[in-house]
Amino acid sequence: MLEYVMKPIGVIHTPFHDTSNMPIQSARSEEYGKVEVFPEYMAGLEGIADFSHLYLLYAFHLANREVNLRVQPFLDDQVHGLFATRYPVRPNPIGLSIVRITAVQENVIFFNGADMLDGTPLLDIKPYIPEFDIFTVDKKGWYQQRKHP
Amino acid sequence: MLEYVMKPIGVIHTPFHDTSNMPIQSARSEEYGKVEVFPEYMAGLEGIADFSHLYLLYAFHLANREVNLRVQPFLDDQVHGLFATRYPVRPNPIGLSIVRITAVQENVIFFNGADMLDGTPLLDIKPYIPEFDIFTVDKKGWYQQRKHP
Repeated sequence: MLEYVMKPIGVIHTPFHDTSNMPIQSARSEEYGKVEVFPEYMAGLEGIADFSHLYLLYAFHLANREVNLRVQPFLDDQVHGLFATRYPVRPNPIGLSIVRITAVQENVIFFNGADMLDGTPLLDIKPYIPEFDIFTVDKKGWYQQRKHP
Repeated sequence: MLEYVMKPIGVIHTPFHDTSNMPIQSARSEEYGKVEVFPEYMAGLEGIADFSHLYLLYAFHLANREVNLRVQPFLDDQVHGLFATRYPVRPNPIGLSIVRITAVQENVIFFNGADMLDGTPLLDIKPYIPEFDIFTVDKKGWYQQRKHP
C-alpha cells in the first residue's frame, strides 16, 4: 500500500522545550503558543479569525522511539492498547490538539491551550465546529475507570 | 525541514465508492462502516471497545488534485481560506472523523458515522474523551454566517 509524505506547513511555538512540565492535554493547559504558518500558505488562513477554536494537527517530531503497541498513558497507572490512548509514540506520529484562538496577525495564529513542544512541525489546521465535533459519549474506557483520577 | 512518511495501519470500508452521495460529516451520517486494522497492529486495540467514540485519522487518498488555498466548502456558497474549512484537497491530506463504535471483533472495528470513501487508508486511531475534546465555542466563522444553512 502507498505511503504518504507529509511536509510541514508551519511551526508551532510554545514555552515547552522538553516534556517534563508540559501539560498533558490542551484542555488542561492555560499556556499560550503561536502557530507560524509558512508565508506561502497564508492565503489559506482567510476567515480563520472568525472561529474561536481550531484543530492543530502536527508531527510528534521527537517521539521517534520504537513503537510499543501496549503503553501506559500519562494519566493512568495501567497499560492499555496504544490506539486507546493519546500516547505520542505511534506508527504515524500525528498529534491533535484543540486550541482557542486569541489573535491572528498575518501568517501567525496566537492561541491558548498549548500542550506541545516548541518547534513542533505543523501539518494541518481545521476549524472546530460544535455541530461536527461534539458528540454525546456514553463510554470513555480507562479514562473513567482509572483509580487515581 | 523534515518530511514525515506516513504508512497506513489499516483500511476503512464504507458503502461509498464515490463522493456523490457521501455524507459531508460523520455527525450528519447514519451510515455504517468498518475499520480493518492490519493484524500486526491488533495489540494496539486493547481496551478500545470500552470507548463509545473514536477519532479516525486517514489519508484523503483520492483528493490528489492541485491544492487551492481558497475553496468553497460543500456546506456554503462562499469561498474561504482552506484552513478555515474541512475541504479534502489539502497540503497534507489528513482526514479526521469522529465515529461511534458499534462492535469490535479481533482486528475489526464496526462503527456508525461513515463519511469517507471505501478503501480509505487508515493512519491513526485515538480515543474521543469529552474532557479533552469538548470545548465551549463562541465563534464558528462562515458556518454560522452562511446564508443557506
